[in-house]
Amino acid sequence: MKVRRSNRLVDMTRYLLAHPRTLVSLKFFSERYGSAKSSISEDLSIIKHTFETWGEGQLKTIPGASGGAILTPYYSEENAQESIDALVNEVADDSRFLPGGYVYLSDMIGRPDILRKVGKLIATQYKDQDVDVIMTVETKGIPIAQAAAMYMNKPFVVVRNSSHITEGPTVSVNYVSGSVKRIKKMELSRRTLSAGANVVIVDDFLKVGGTLNGMHSLIKEFDANIVGMTVLAESASSEKRLVDNCTSLVKVDADDSDQKKTITARPGSFMETVFGKEN
Amino acid sequence: MKVRRSNRLVDMTRYLLAHPRTLVSLKFFSERYGSAKSSISEDLSIIKHTFETWGEGQLKTIPGASGGAILTPYYSEENAQESIDALVNEVADDSRFLPGGYVYLSDMIGRPDILRKVGKLIATQYKDQDVDVIMTVETKGIPIAQAAAMYMNKPFVVVRNSSHITEGPTVSVNYVSGSVKRIKKMELSRRTLSAGANVVIVDDFLKVGGTLNGMHSLIKEFDANIVGMTVLAESASSEKRLVDNCTSLVKVDADDSDQKKTITARPGSFMETVFGKEN
Repeated sequence: MKVRRSNRLVDMTRYLLAHPRTLVSLKFFSERYGSAKSSISEDLSIIKHTFETWGEGQLKTIPGASGGAILTPYYSEENAQESIDALVNEVADDSRFLPGGYVYLSDMIGRPDILRKVGKLIATQYKDQDVDVIMTVETKGIPIAQAAAMYMNKPFVVVRNSSHITEGPTVSVNYVSGSVKRIKKMELSRRTLSAGANVVIVDDFLKVGGTLNGMHSLIKEFDANIVGMTVLAESASSEKRLVDNCTSLVKVDADDSDQKKTITARPGSFMETVFGKEN
Repeated sequence: MKVRRSNRLVDMTRYLLAHPRTLVSLKFFSERYGSAKSSISEDLSIIKHTFETWGEGQLKTIPGASGGAILTPYYSEENAQESIDALVNEVADDSRFLPGGYVYLSDMIGRPDILRKVGKLIATQYKDQDVDVIMTVETKGIPIAQAAAMYMNKPFVVVRNSSHITEGPTVSVNYVSGSVKRIKKMELSRRTLSAGANVVIVDDFLKVGGTLNGMHSLIKEFDANIVGMTVLAESASSEKRLVDNCTSLVKVDADDSDQKKTITARPGSFMETVFGKEN
């Protein structure tokens, strides 16, 4: 079978998007389409140029016999700002108000359109870094971790709050739950994380930072390294934080004073951290 | 800006994959690329033909002034069989043995390559059905639900085992946990599911079916409809099941007799249910 350029471009784009941050060899494409490697190289130039033009990612081409291409999906500054603004608009809704300064976000973290933005923003932040695994804590951090994992093509691990029989041997740490000031326990299956692994921590919401701090301790317990921490939303209140250097996509303020029950939202630290742009 | 066909094909493929099961108008593409609608129509024919040739999905084109295209990602029978076989190979590993007939799958449901297969298989099963929402139960069902949601472009909701302060008002049901024969409680945030919604239930593992049965009751409590149930793996043991009509991708047997501690795996009911093909 010999496949025409127009069909190759469509299938190659689909294939590369399904295998992000993975070296796909010229040989593989050449055999798949019955085309010369020189034609495949030209196809890759077109794909590279298109992703750059639309600010949707970088295609790195590796020359030589064992060469090929690696697609790293990410947002240009303009697309990132647009995605952040869309998230801010979603969060800024008084019906999200919950008692105690919390914010209802469960609907957002179940929506594919939101998760694609969140995942690609996190992938943008860590596009040039060596990441082996993404870590989060059950339950609401899971969709954030998975969304990032899909674009970064790295596995995610879920820290759990109590022992479950289907997990096998675990390592556990105690931590101070920030909002209720109570000692709690979190644990991770021993076989899910290797010593020396480079870990990105993600979660849905940062208030005091107790659980993020707990994951910090757990990573040290496994002799692994922390590459960075990112949350979907952080509380704008000036409570004392237990963690530094956590990037947020959205900053949200749940105002309970005078029974107002209002929610205001603005961009978090993401654009400044990633693009050096002040909000 | 006027964009050439080769660049349009790459960007349109990326755009359609990021907006599955969504009508994207000719007008949108025509303005995005500064191209005539007739050229965009030709592009869409090429994309349609390519997805069909490689068995990766269907592009439905809607003619007329308000027309456009809808991409439904799914696997051809051949690709589905290949993905099921890959999942079976992953599961068939004695180191997955856990006491009590359970199977360690946590690593699999944290791997993007596995989740893409699982999600696209589930999307294949329900490609012609009207689905409003995907439902699962915390914790290990979440990655399965999210994987399916990304390909079906529908939201997923997570049933929880106990009350959490950040959820708002909830509806709860009691159910019999099959494996331990105990009455437990599961609940879902009231605002996450509407009456009359068409729901697909997914989970990671089916043993007796207690939690699936509980979700069944919960859906009735919300006056919603069940479209179908699909699990990643079902236990091959002949225990009495609490649910019928649950599709499985993999069937797994954890043999504890004579201290053997072996795991065997084979394809589940998926190929027969979806393609009428006997395993």
